[in-house]
Parts: sequence; C-alpha cells; structure tokens
Amino acid sequence: MRAEIISVGTELLLGQIVDTNAAYLSAKLPALGVSVYFRSTVGDNENRIAEALKLAFSRSDVVITIGGLGPTDDDLTKETVAKMLGQRLVVDQYSAERIRRFFLDRGVQMPEANLKQAQTPENGRVLPNDVGTAPGAIFEQDEKAVVVMPGPPGEMIPMFEHYVVPYLREKAGPAAGFIKSRVLRIIGMGESAVAELVRDLFAAENPTVAPLAKGGEVHLRITVQASDEAQADQLIRGTEDKLRERLGGVVFGVDEETLEDVVVRLLIEKRLTAAAAESCTGGLIMHRLTNVPGSSKAFLGGVVAYDNRAKVELLGVSEEDLRSKGAVSHEVARAMASGVGRLLHTDIAVGVTGIAGPGGGTPEKPVGLVYIGISSQEETISQEFRLRGGRIDIKERSALAALAMLRDLLIR
Amino acid sequence: MRAEIISVGTELLLGQIVDTNAAYLSAKLPALGVSVYFRSTVGDNENRIAEALKLAFSRSDVVITIGGLGPTDDDLTKETVAKMLGQRLVVDQYSAERIRRFFLDRGVQMPEANLKQAQTPENGRVLPNDVGTAPGAIFEQDEKAVVVMPGPPGEMIPMFEHYVVPYLREKAGPAAGFIKSRVLRIIGMGESAVAELVRDLFAAENPTVAPLAKGGEVHLRITVQASDEAQADQLIRGTEDKLRERLGGVVFGVDEETLEDVVVRLLIEKRLTAAAAESCTGGLIMHRLTNVPGSSKAFLGGVVAYDNRAKVELLGVSEEDLRSKGAVSHEVARAMASGVGRLLHTDIAVGVTGIAGPGGGTPEKPVGLVYIGISSQEETISQEFRLRGGRIDIKERSALAALAMLRDLLIR
Repeated sequence: MRAEIISVGTELLLGQIVDTNAAYLSAKLPALGVSVYFRSTVGDNENRIAEALKLAFSRSDVVITIGGLGPTDDDLTKETVAKMLGQRLVVDQYSAERIRRFFLDRGVQMPEANLKQAQTPENGRVLPNDVGTAPGAIFEQDEKAVVVMPGPPGEMIPMFEHYVVPYLREKAGPAAGFIKSRVLRIIGMGESAVAELVRDLFAAENPTVAPLAKGGEVHLRITVQASDEAQADQLIRGTEDKLRERLGGVVFGVDEETLEDVVVRLLIEKRLTAAAAESCTGGLIMHRLTNVPGSSKAFLGGVVAYDNRAKVELLGVSEEDLRSKGAVSHEVARAMASGVGRLLHTDIAVGVTGIAGPGGGTPEKPVGLVYIGISSQEETISQEFRLRGGRIDIKERSALAALAMLRDLLIR
Repeated sequence: MRAEIISVGTELLLGQIVDTNAAYLSAKLPALGVSVYFRSTVGDNENRIAEALKLAFSRSDVVITIGGLGPTDDDLTKETVAKMLGQRLVVDQYSAERIRRFFLDRGVQMPEANLKQAQTPENGRVLPNDVGTAPGAIFEQDEKAVVVMPGPPGEMIPMFEHYVVPYLREKAGPAAGFIKSRVLRIIGMGESAVAELVRDLFAAENPTVAPLAKGGEVHLRITVQASDEAQADQLIRGTEDKLRERLGGVVFGVDEETLEDVVVRLLIEKRLTAAAAESCTGGLIMHRLTNVPGSSKAFLGGVVAYDNRAKVELLGVSEEDLRSKGAVSHEVARAMASGVGRLLHTDIAVGVTGIAGPGGGTPEKPVGLVYIGISSQEETISQEFRLRGGRIDIKERSALAALAMLRDLLIR
C-alpha cells in the first residue's frame, strides 16, 4: 500500500518550524506495510492545498494530511478535502460536545469559531482528539482514503497511534506483509570502520541493513518483510546476532535507547551511584542523565565548575596542578572526577574539562581539546579527546564521550 | 520570483532524519524576494526524482534540490536534472582536483567513484563545496534555473550563503523588492493574551505581524516588503515600536537571541556573576547558560543536587526544612539559591526544586509542581509554578521560568 504525506501550514514554508511530524509518520508507516514515496508541504492556501491533494490522491492509496484544522479562516484542510471528493461536512455532535467541555473545564466561553472544528465528513470517520480541540477525520472514496490530522505533535501522535494505526493495519491487510525494523546503536566506532566489518550484510535483500551516522553515533537499521511478526522477529534476530558478533561491545543499545538510558540502567542493575563534575560541558552530561525517568535512584548530582576557584574550593583540585598543568589537563580531569565522587559520596564519578570555544584556545591547547576523567573505587583514569565543530558540537561530543566512558566502565 | 524546494533522500522518507535543510532554506528565501509555495521530498529513485523535478520546474522560476550528490550509484540528482533539461554533464577539472586533494590531505587514496562528484553541467555553473567533496551546480534554461546542493547541512549552508544567495539576489533583481522580517520574542505572556493586546496589528498588510507559540515563548514575526533595506528597516521599526509600547517588558529579545543570551549579556553589562543550584532541572539551566559564548565571564558554575544529602551538605539546606516543608518547597528553593551563591561567591544565584515525574508525585505535591528561588545581595525570593507535560517538558519549562526570573531581576 502506498501513502503520501502532505504537511499544511504557512509557518512550515516560512521555516518558522521544522517539520518533525512528517519524519515521525515516515518512520512509523513502513511497519504497517505502507510505503511512502513522496512527501510535500504547502501553505494555508486553498488552491495550493487542492493541487497537492489531487496529485497525491491520484498516485497513492492513502493521503495523510497534517495541519490546517484550527478554528480560524485560514485553516482549510478539511474543507478542501471535502470539496475535492464532493463530500459534505456535518457537525459531529460528540466532537462539538467535547470542544464545549474543553473550554468549560478551563472556565472560558467557547468562541463560536471553534465549532467549525467539530465538522466531519458525512460518510467518513471521526478521529477523536484526546488532547486538544481539533478532531481528525478519515474520508473514503473508491478504496482510497484521506486521513486528516491536526498539526501539533502532542495531538497528532496520540491520534495516529490510537486511531490511525489500527485503521491502516486493517486497510493494508495481510497481503501487505509485516514490515519491522530494529536499529542497533553504536558508539566509539566511525561509519566507515563499521562498514568495513559488515559490508557484505549491506548487500542482503531481506533483512536489509542500512547505516546512518547520527549525533556522534552510528545506527544500523535492520528492516525485514515477513508474513507475520514471529517470522519477522526471527529474521531480525539472525541478522542482529551476526552484526553483534562482528561489532562486539560498540553496540550499546537498540531503537530509541539512548546512551544515558543505558548508563542509568547499568548503574541501577549494579546498585551503584554516580556523580559528575563538568567544566566545558557546562551541565549537559547531568542534563542528559537526569532526562532518564528514575535516574534519581542512581545519579545523585554534581558540580558545574566553570570557574577555577570552584574547581579548587569545591572539588579539591590542587592549585599546583592548575598552575603547572593548566585547567585543561589529564590531572585536573582526574581530580575533578575523584573530587566530586568524594563530595557526593558516590561509587563512580566523571570529570570533564576542555575548551569549547570559540575563544580560549592556544596553539598548545586548541579549541576542541577535552580531558575526561573517570573515578571508581578501583582506579581513576583519564582520556584526551580532540573534537571538532562549534561550541555546541564540542559540548555535545564531550558529553557523549563521557557517557561512553561511563558505559565502558560499567560493562567491564 | 517563485522557488520550490525538493529534498532528495530515502533516509528522509524513512524518517531516519528530520529535514532541517528545507526549513533553513524556507526561512532564508523570502528575504531575497523569493516565495516558496511548495516543498517536496522524494527518495533516491530516478523516476520519482524526475517526476518531482518536472512538476516543480513547470510551476516555479527556480527549483532548489538538496541531497543525492554522493559518490554512490543511488546518488542521482545531478544526472536526473541533466536528463530532464537535455544537458550534458562534464567533469569540472577544478572540482576534480579539489576532491583529489581532499583525499590526499587525509592520507587516503581517492575511490574512483568520487570523480562522479566532480561532474557539472556543460553550460551551467559550479557551486564550490568549501567543506566537503560534492560540489553543487546551477543548471539554467529558458530564464529558469535548477540549483543543486549537497545534503549535509554543514556543506549546504555555507554553499547557499556564499554562492547561491548572490545568484538568487541578482536573478530576482530589484523588481522583487526587498523583503525583511524581524521576530520579537516574548516570555511570560501566553499567545492569546498577546493577541488581545495587538490584534489590530495582525490585520495590517505591510508590515504583516504573525504570532507563533514556540518552546514556551511567543514569537511575533514582523515582515515587510519595501523598495530597499533602509525603507524596510524604517517600516519594521514603526511596527516594532507600537508592539513594544503595548507589550512592555515581556519582549525579551529579537530574532535568534535566546533567553540565556539575554541573561548572560545583562550579567556582563552589569558586571555581575551568577551560579545555579538545580534539582529537577538536573543541569539544564547551566547547560543553556554555558551554551552562550563568553558566558564564563559571568556564570561561574553551580551544583546539581538531586540527592537530599547533597542539598544539606553542599548547599546548606536545613534538615528541618526538608522534613517539615519537604524538598519541593519555597523554603528549599530559596535555601538552594542562597547556598549556591555563597558556595561560588556570586552576586546572584538561582535554585530550582520540583517534581519532573513521571514518578514521585503525590496529591499535595503533584508532578509539575516546581519552586524557583532567586537570591541577590538585596533579597531572596521564590515563586511557585504548576507546569504541564512529560518529564522533559517540565525540565524545559522550569529552566525557561528560571531564566525568565533571572532576567526580571536583571532588568529591574
């Protein structure tokens, strides 16, 4: 089954927002047996919405539109779809009631314009909006369908998952086969080095294996087409086993699992606690670790010591080391790690010091030079990195390297 | 002048990457007098690239393609454009030499396939790639043009800025007029409250004013069409003055200026230093402040005190307050702020404590309850917030609120 996605909104064409919705849907549809060959974006203009709709409808089984369901006059998607298909819109009483209650709950009088949002196709289906006021809709004609969803990702995603996925799965039917994919996430090995080790698997047809460099990691996506989920899982497992055998410990996680998820999980499993002392990363390592739900069980906190005085007074870095080796050195990274571990009474600690730029570099210590220390009950080690990019790239790459070193320690 | 953007790449249609390039170009083109009415995305498939190209070429003056310029067989953009226009591709010697040198500098033998990247239109122009190996190209025919650029943003953006902008500006000519926009960024007032105050200006035609809620802020974009830049600036200033008069202090910045940029700038201007103590935000406030180049002049560091023991031992929060008021309370937020200010010897300090969820909420202290304390030489104050969303939303909204409170203090 073929689908095409149309994103509607002048704010997209002005570059005021990045279209994450289209990427989200593109990632989800293949697993339902739905292929996406084209995506397009149009502004809030009836003629151009109609032009994009007609073309998409002519060459696909399902058209999915996102956006243009608001209460104002320039929200035109439903009206334009109805006109193209020659279908009437009627007010859906259930949706109207939900919209009224939505405003009532907030102690606000419902503007009359909002009733427009309760309009749905006379012969189609309503897609309930459990989060906001704009319901979606499915229009059907000649075995084809147009699925209309609202633009805010917080509303579109639950609507898609709860109501559109079952519809598409049924529509695609068993003939579509079952498509499933699984991503192996790799840290500490570049894309070309990974390719050297597994190149022969890139040529396989089912499952396919495709590499992608992303945010300092390398992702290998295994995609399989099978008759059912059990067969899909079995085929994926076969390929995954081969990949893991060749790649070894650099595979740190699968699918949505981040490096911080893995570090927090390993800490909790091993009943260990951790702390961080950050200079050039400025809190980013702690921010990432505390993004993980439940991280407070294992991650106790830490210090951002941008200032040298804070390194000395809080973390116990020696003034002698700061003078003779400099704030950006193996010695200071190690002292920051062991200092913050002492301060927070943790089993493990990490310390990062470096030059994120754009200022502060010298010929001996250029922008991008970073030292990371790791301290545990057994030992305190440190590593030097020379990272590229702007200030924020260097912060991100340093944080990633620090999390990777924590993982290395935890899986040893 | 009308342009259409085509993003090429199967990785886009599989949702493996989000298309930030298209948003970037969309944001830049209006200032050159170029309107974008359609954007589309196709995979690495010759027929579908050709189909998208033909449609775009038929209804616009300039087609801009991004991606599909790599060395492998599925990189097809240049070849497909040449075929559509009936133009020949020839090897550009200068580009070939640059590619050879690129590999030489890295001590790697150039794979023969990479020479394909040096192909350029016989009668067109080469767009040099100062960062990577794939040059871009401009094909011309019947007053129309196809601009072909590589997909990695780090290569596309400099190529666009250095070589494509002058071309488009000349091509659009003076008749296109001069389009300029400026965004006023607002914090601490919702979109509908802003709209109430300035609704009449939303109806104006030149400049136009359009609102957008984005990441906890409200943005008002003023866009003007004028005969030259001086006139554009004058018209924008007139509207900006009216908006600022009505909105007052909630306008914190313009264009790309973030709240942390403003806080760091104000600290440096006033020769003040600051520190932070974070619980539920887990380092995010410090991460944002240290994203600002030069922030080390004013921001000295701080503490992430996830653990209560760290709150007591490091920040001097009283055990009595923790017991009687709880870790999430006005008292603890204030004690965290003044404690970290003492610890790092700063003029100003902020302390944040709250429940980011998903666990840890109670009926009295639900997920989303956050207290922020601000401490200065004059006083220590605190504010209660009840924030919505998931764990990461609550971290982000808390950090934004804390930065807004720091700004409030600094502009008083």
